[in-house]
Amino acid sequence: MDRPVAATRKPRRASKSKDLGSEARLMALAENRIAIEGVAPEIDGGRFAIKRTEGEPLVVSADIFSDGHDEIAAAVVYGPADTETWSETPLTFVANDRWSAEIVFDTPGPYRFSIVAWRDLYATWRDEATKKRDAGKLTDLELTEARELVKNAATSGRGSKADQKAVAKLHDKLEKLSVKGDADGQYDLMQAAATVALLQAAGHRTHQSRYPIDVPVWVDRTAAAFSAWYELMPRSQSGDVNRHGTFDDVIKRLPDIQEMGFDVLYFPPIHPIGSTNRKGKNNSLTPGPDDPGSPYAIGSDEGGHDAIHPELGTFEDFARLVEAAKQHGLEIALDFAIQCSPDHPWIKQHPDWFDWRPDGTIKFAENPPKKYEDIVNVHFYRGALPSIWYELRDIVLFWLDKGVRIFRVDNPHTKPFPFWEWMIAEVRKVDPGVVFLAEAFTRPKVMKRLGKVGYNQSYSYFTWRNAKAELTEYLTELTQTEAAEYMRPNFFVNTPDINPLYLQVSGRPGFRTRLALAATLAGNYGVYSGFELCEFLPVPGKEEYLNSEKYEIRAFDWKGEGNIRDDIAFFNRLRRSEKALQDFRSLAFYNFFNDSILYYGKRTADLSSFLLFAVTLDPHAPQGGQFEVPLWEFGLPDDGSVKVEDMVTGQSFAWNGKVQHWWMNPYDRPYAVFKISR
Amino acid sequence: MDRPVAATRKPRRASKSKDLGSEARLMALAENRIAIEGVAPEIDGGRFAIKRTEGEPLVVSADIFSDGHDEIAAAVVYGPADTETWSETPLTFVANDRWSAEIVFDTPGPYRFSIVAWRDLYATWRDEATKKRDAGKLTDLELTEARELVKNAATSGRGSKADQKAVAKLHDKLEKLSVKGDADGQYDLMQAAATVALLQAAGHRTHQSRYPIDVPVWVDRTAAAFSAWYELMPRSQSGDVNRHGTFDDVIKRLPDIQEMGFDVLYFPPIHPIGSTNRKGKNNSLTPGPDDPGSPYAIGSDEGGHDAIHPELGTFEDFARLVEAAKQHGLEIALDFAIQCSPDHPWIKQHPDWFDWRPDGTIKFAENPPKKYEDIVNVHFYRGALPSIWYELRDIVLFWLDKGVRIFRVDNPHTKPFPFWEWMIAEVRKVDPGVVFLAEAFTRPKVMKRLGKVGYNQSYSYFTWRNAKAELTEYLTELTQTEAAEYMRPNFFVNTPDINPLYLQVSGRPGFRTRLALAATLAGNYGVYSGFELCEFLPVPGKEEYLNSEKYEIRAFDWKGEGNIRDDIAFFNRLRRSEKALQDFRSLAFYNFFNDSILYYGKRTADLSSFLLFAVTLDPHAPQGGQFEVPLWEFGLPDDGSVKVEDMVTGQSFAWNGKVQHWWMNPYDRPYAVFKISR
Repeated sequence: MDRPVAATRKPRRASKSKDLGSEARLMALAENRIAIEGVAPEIDGGRFAIKRTEGEPLVVSADIFSDGHDEIAAAVVYGPADTETWSETPLTFVANDRWSAEIVFDTPGPYRFSIVAWRDLYATWRDEATKKRDAGKLTDLELTEARELVKNAATSGRGSKADQKAVAKLHDKLEKLSVKGDADGQYDLMQAAATVALLQAAGHRTHQSRYPIDVPVWVDRTAAAFSAWYELMPRSQSGDVNRHGTFDDVIKRLPDIQEMGFDVLYFPPIHPIGSTNRKGKNNSLTPGPDDPGSPYAIGSDEGGHDAIHPELGTFEDFARLVEAAKQHGLEIALDFAIQCSPDHPWIKQHPDWFDWRPDGTIKFAENPPKKYEDIVNVHFYRGALPSIWYELRDIVLFWLDKGVRIFRVDNPHTKPFPFWEWMIAEVRKVDPGVVFLAEAFTRPKVMKRLGKVGYNQSYSYFTWRNAKAELTEYLTELTQTEAAEYMRPNFFVNTPDINPLYLQVSGRPGFRTRLALAATLAGNYGVYSGFELCEFLPVPGKEEYLNSEKYEIRAFDWKGEGNIRDDIAFFNRLRRSEKALQDFRSLAFYNFFNDSILYYGKRTADLSSFLLFAVTLDPHAPQGGQFEVPLWEFGLPDDGSVKVEDMVTGQSFAWNGKVQHWWMNPYDRPYAVFKISR
Repeated sequence: MDRPVAATRKPRRASKSKDLGSEARLMALAENRIAIEGVAPEIDGGRFAIKRTEGEPLVVSADIFSDGHDEIAAAVVYGPADTETWSETPLTFVANDRWSAEIVFDTPGPYRFSIVAWRDLYATWRDEATKKRDAGKLTDLELTEARELVKNAATSGRGSKADQKAVAKLHDKLEKLSVKGDADGQYDLMQAAATVALLQAAGHRTHQSRYPIDVPVWVDRTAAAFSAWYELMPRSQSGDVNRHGTFDDVIKRLPDIQEMGFDVLYFPPIHPIGSTNRKGKNNSLTPGPDDPGSPYAIGSDEGGHDAIHPELGTFEDFARLVEAAKQHGLEIALDFAIQCSPDHPWIKQHPDWFDWRPDGTIKFAENPPKKYEDIVNVHFYRGALPSIWYELRDIVLFWLDKGVRIFRVDNPHTKPFPFWEWMIAEVRKVDPGVVFLAEAFTRPKVMKRLGKVGYNQSYSYFTWRNAKAELTEYLTELTQTEAAEYMRPNFFVNTPDINPLYLQVSGRPGFRTRLALAATLAGNYGVYSGFELCEFLPVPGKEEYLNSEKYEIRAFDWKGEGNIRDDIAFFNRLRRSEKALQDFRSLAFYNFFNDSILYYGKRTADLSSFLLFAVTLDPHAPQGGQFEVPLWEFGLPDDGSVKVEDMVTGQSFAWNGKVQHWWMNPYDRPYAVFKISR
């Protein structure tokens, strides 16, 4: 029989390596021996930043593994974006090749993290040596290998000078023990905690591999994630429908607003209002001579987005208001509505920012066949690119100069996403603490995209989620899915544009219910003035307010009978005192065996602030039943006990056993709040 | 009152634009006005290819949307990798901003796809014009805008010359109608199907945006996803334990194997076997002088991985075997086991490919405290990088030259992932039809990573999934999650290394059950010879075969009593005749109200091949009960009827109503197969 041997094969290496692929590709692939994948959180492959607030923990996790059985180690590396500064925190093994670590960024701004992993030859040695020793098979060979490992650490280029000195000393010690034939001594020294730490700091990182993406993180000031908004129309603050309110009138209202415990005081546009095609009362097309027009019809010969409507006051008045608000614990938020009345100065100054029709007329905003003839929209492309991008950025910077650091943006989904991404980043270069709230009541993916491109907060569908199943599903999506990494809801109970059907028929109990939900389910929530008075009169058949302040000056008795100012103050106090309410993601729904009662918990990771909320969604009839106390969150059995504080009454008691009972009359109080502890 | 106007604002544009950010960034962002995200399928941001086979549909989907309300359009662009060739298929709107399209690649090789989207001004015009016309508000202005749209199409640079001529002609016609004052004529012409098609082909694509990732697709020949493997040890094919089998003996067995209907005939290593530290019968350390050794102890002075064990035959014999197999509808698969006996020629020729200990001895494979002294492993880094990478690639290319296009790779998870990624890509440059099967019985993420880096097929946990819940959960993971895009299981019922506990105690019924499951649940499945004889004798207490062929020559009566060759032939025939069985992902589990019966359907998208399988998992006692006929898959009500063909008996009948009944005695037949149609 012939003997077929290797010689029958023509060697290919020399001849074919060039034909078949570049050695560069081989070497590039070889550099990342360790697989690092499934990195979380990460949005769209690192295209967009995840969001955190200053001091808020960020748990980074990833699947990390290598071929074979050698030990590996890994670390998250992180630091400010656009710098060469990298800190490092070890990742620890969780299970099933998953590793994780917690990092924190202390000040607002842009950051990024990535992951490195390497084969830890020293850990492999320790593991194998222990097994061999336990089996009585540890020989001098393994100890010689250990001495070589230590010796090699000197060439790692890692660790401090002191570390490298310690390495040399360690090697000496091992050599001496070896000369003495002291195997146990060498083994013990190699396994010592100090040696582990020293070689972690100064040892080689064999085959260190790096995750190719620097995952961007945007760190906000706390107010971006935790704030209570109060919205009012300055012109309605005079207390007299015949007198246009002023900034000074608003200053007089600050103690009231502070008493309710709000953080942010937000105004719809305060700019000059156009007169061409002005709207009259209740959105009519036939205004009277004294009708003030919609503040969203921005711009007249008195100025545009960088001017103040003269009847409200001067820039000096505005500055005084900003300062007075600060004295009352309130921050002013302005509306940024990129739309123009036909009288806006831009139309003459920058015709290329607008759409013109073949007959030379300007194109009004429209939703065919409807036309909105008091408003024209700017164009962001063609002749307006990039000039209007700069102009709009500069308007935000202008108001920033005036002390405004929070902007509620009107209809951002009708302006290009790239504009927002660029503009928000630009403004943040000047002040990373500027907060943008997106008023985008539109399709879910569009709303999410605005969060991705940089918006700090987003209006939500909360206003239309009333039933238990709806609220549970929607809040689970907002707080427990990837969206929570980049989109923070701001739960407005009402707005000048939305008089919710639920509140039109719920009476006062429904207002208290919706307040309780908004204030406790979201980190950010908001109230449009009138809500505290249970204002509900609609334009018949519509979710709009009758005699809306958008088209006329109104006057209110801010402390009128039946107001729910006490409830508002209660929840705002609770939000400030309980850390559990300061992170919208710390939410869990629990079982209340009644479909009219939403029952949920908010808790800090250490359970030191653990609140339970039962809110009846039925504003008309008493509701109650059995519910489950989440004893398991404390590791307690079903017959365990927790201490309870009723946060409304201040009473303290205990719940013994998992199943308890509660009953609520909505006319009395449609919510209950309990703080529980072990 | 002072009049605060724009003049009070210092213009920032000129002075600050440079400080605040580069215009380049603005313009780059502006280029992608349309959001394209959530592209599927896509693995790790395009880092790894998704897999399809030649002619298999690939459904691409993505979330695509723009700001505002204008109409958009989108297309998937695709073509062979590393070329400038791009085809285009329109994406169609599905729901909730999701779009999708189906594309197909006809020949094996590397491809990629991406997505483009643009604002379709013409569609927007049509939509708005229709609404205005329906409201009686269509004016000559809209028609003038339409004529301008058409006129502008001439500058699009798109469409054929004929298209551009047609555009000019269309514009002329519109102008003439306009001169005549024929509004209806213009409107109708703009809405005509031919105009829609023409402007789609030749109109402007306003703000065309492109998804930044070219998503890689690897297209395999069909055998990569659909194959039935038969594994045998050539040396046991002589029929006489005292005579070493040869390739010619294997040739004699081909008709038998063809009769059972297999596609692939796979051999464990056929290379020279080392004698140093050779293993004896039943893996003993004390071999007799005639013991042949494990074929996995590769290499002796007769050669290494590119040589044939002399007692099997010559390269000429091997060539004859490859050709004879082809004549019998069988393709030869070889084992690629990167490990060496201590006698492998490489050890002297390439000492830098191995690990050496401080005392100058070679490091054996070990799993401390165990040592495997008949095997040493190569090193892929240090002095072996890149030389052994080339050598190993060249060994695969060597056997490819000998007509072998399928490789079962031994323990790939103990070799670096980058090596596989590089090597598989290199081999595919020579022949994109080469198939690699990963024998990685290891942790789930490691197994998946091997699929990602290029393996066409993967061994699985199927061998250890016996209960209904286990099988349902595992098959759902394999067929319905992202893993199905890159990992194709090959369900081996047994292997030389695995004598499953289930089969050790199930008797013949259990063999038929496991065959039925493997052959119908996976596109690829395999049988190690002896299975058809219901061989089950274990090393006591282990999942290993007693008197394993790995350590001795065996002889079998291949048509002995109690064999299940008819069952094997039945399932292999069924697999070839029914398209539903050729895609492992076309699986759905249905309700059989008995936890011992796994009941599932496999179907083509058009339902022309729709099979139902009921397999009893209890090999000891009869089982039966009620089950649900998936009438809903045909859009039928619960009292509807389907035609049924019993694929085992050939009987035809009908099922009237959703709930039916079946009973199986495992000693008679532990499975039922029904083909249903409307």
